[in-house]
Amino acid sequence: MAPLRPVSLDEIESIAIGAWILGTGGGGSPYLALLNLRRLYREGTVVSLMDPADLADEDRVAVVSNMGAPLVGQERLTDPRTIAQAVRMMEDVIGRRFRAVMSLEIGGGNSLQPFMAAALLGLPVVDADCMGRAFPEAQMTSFAIHDLQMYPLTLVDVRDNAVVVARAASWKWMERLSRTACVAVGSIASTCKAPRTGKEVKECAILYSTSKALRIGHAVRAARRAHEDPIQAVLALEGGLRLFAGKIQDVERRATEGFLRGTATIDGLDDSRGHTMRLAFQNEFAVAWLDGAPRATTPDLICVIDTVSGDAIGTETLRYGQRVTVIALPAPPILLTPKGIEHVGPRAFGYDLDFVSVFA
Amino acid sequence: MAPLRPVSLDEIESIAIGAWILGTGGGGSPYLALLNLRRLYREGTVVSLMDPADLADEDRVAVVSNMGAPLVGQERLTDPRTIAQAVRMMEDVIGRRFRAVMSLEIGGGNSLQPFMAAALLGLPVVDADCMGRAFPEAQMTSFAIHDLQMYPLTLVDVRDNAVVVARAASWKWMERLSRTACVAVGSIASTCKAPRTGKEVKECAILYSTSKALRIGHAVRAARRAHEDPIQAVLALEGGLRLFAGKIQDVERRATEGFLRGTATIDGLDDSRGHTMRLAFQNEFAVAWLDGAPRATTPDLICVIDTVSGDAIGTETLRYGQRVTVIALPAPPILLTPKGIEHVGPRAFGYDLDFVSVFA
Repeated sequence: MAPLRPVSLDEIESIAIGAWILGTGGGGSPYLALLNLRRLYREGTVVSLMDPADLADEDRVAVVSNMGAPLVGQERLTDPRTIAQAVRMMEDVIGRRFRAVMSLEIGGGNSLQPFMAAALLGLPVVDADCMGRAFPEAQMTSFAIHDLQMYPLTLVDVRDNAVVVARAASWKWMERLSRTACVAVGSIASTCKAPRTGKEVKECAILYSTSKALRIGHAVRAARRAHEDPIQAVLALEGGLRLFAGKIQDVERRATEGFLRGTATIDGLDDSRGHTMRLAFQNEFAVAWLDGAPRATTPDLICVIDTVSGDAIGTETLRYGQRVTVIALPAPPILLTPKGIEHVGPRAFGYDLDFVSVFA
Repeated sequence: MAPLRPVSLDEIESIAIGAWILGTGGGGSPYLALLNLRRLYREGTVVSLMDPADLADEDRVAVVSNMGAPLVGQERLTDPRTIAQAVRMMEDVIGRRFRAVMSLEIGGGNSLQPFMAAALLGLPVVDADCMGRAFPEAQMTSFAIHDLQMYPLTLVDVRDNAVVVARAASWKWMERLSRTACVAVGSIASTCKAPRTGKEVKECAILYSTSKALRIGHAVRAARRAHEDPIQAVLALEGGLRLFAGKIQDVERRATEGFLRGTATIDGLDDSRGHTMRLAFQNEFAVAWLDGAPRATTPDLICVIDTVSGDAIGTETLRYGQRVTVIALPAPPILLTPKGIEHVGPRAFGYDLDFVSVFA
């Protein structure tokens, strides 16, 4: 087995930046998790990254995420112990030890949840996730698209509450049961999703997405240091498209049913002057309309970036007056298959639109 | 150990009648469970009743109930397999086998749920419950009043969904977490509550309440056969009080948040002519007002009985025009302690009323 690669705190800083861009507005701000990791590293922790190819077929991997409405995650502080507890509880449920931890979604703060769990549990983090971005619902994963088993799930909150969804009749039932438990504890909870075997991770996960977040974050920071345009650096690196640039003119937002839903309207500036872009989100940006016509939809990554700093802006931190650039990044191929579009295309979010990729 | 006493189908018919009276409007109609048991008995099943005194201190007892809004229980048919599955799942969770099954509440159909589970699992039913009647919420039990541990809980529905509340920060959190799961699967679910030791049952349960339901049911049936007043027979047997007799004039009822809530207004007849009684319920009758003044409140048992047949009427089957008699029966002593009143008195249901027993 190849040696595990230690991840430095500097690399974690880059992952936070890159993952926040890949979050397409969601996955929760990485800021609080980053503060936790800075402290854990100060105390001597070093988390290692594991190449998924080094997993044995029979290994078990914990798939973790902080679940809920991102706006609530800003108020209820992130605690590494709850995510570690969700993993430990899952070990009790399945009666097996985990070989490693991985992200449910590489987008946003959920890219760092496995690092926090790993730090406390002494496990490595697998370089992979099952969205390649962030999505709001349980059935919106490469594992669901591959029809893998959806249970059990453990859910832990900051009090002393813990729920196990032991069986679910379908992925949608898993979403419903875990979501209602999440809402009951205050619309934010630490979860360990259905455990995966090493074989399942190697065959069905989105591989090397942690490295991708790291690469994007490095590019942003390098551009900043060189006084170059960080957004251009990301677009060049990932083959992305600049969709719109402007000033946020209006935000309508509500935390409901365990999600953050709403819309944002952007008045164009520079090349976009005279035009308007409207974005709709359910935790993550789902559809972008340019002057009323659909311009980009999920699963293409629709990312709203601070025009100057290159930092992503989450759906919970959008504000009137922000100067933003909307870009699109390519989605992982599995999401673009017919089955993938069924799970994560615009109709899966309630929009009567066909998916047409901006990269088509 | 004393031999287990086999319960005949005729006795189960009596338990159904007696428990429906003790249900104070809730616990769900026993009718569907009775149909199931008639069939199971036709197929050769005989369930045994166990004296709680015969439990060893270290035995484990499964505490079962069908949870949710009684109105929904009328539409989604009772299946003995779901309650048995909730018990089996609990055995998996705690890694121990149960010695016996008992009722959470002796009121209504939940008096028969342990018989259905017992029939499928080959276990006896303990002659006890932890309410001595029916109540809508998890913390309204003698076990909660005794501050016993409130978790784990297993919850199973008719699809393939199963949830475990593995830990709860308090009894109210247990209520909230299990209630939201119950609502998510359609406001009715089979549950196995926190397992009890034989010692806990002997010290903290309401003992011999199955026998009490049986005794009441026998009295009703004997009075009917003798063309005597079945209500008078119950009052004489249990030391109850006749509060009101009349005709239901109005019912306001809604299934909400996993409960059946509402009010019923009764116009007086005979001795009660010229007076009005109003009843408020949350699954069970909580308060009765006579001409606007509180006449009886929980935990005194407020039972609405068909004036002629002596059959109880549930909060889900109250209808305009029914001729009913409202009676009160004494509550188990544990419910009348200061701690008991805190858990199940009128204030626990949101009524700013002191508890004054009609038997004081």
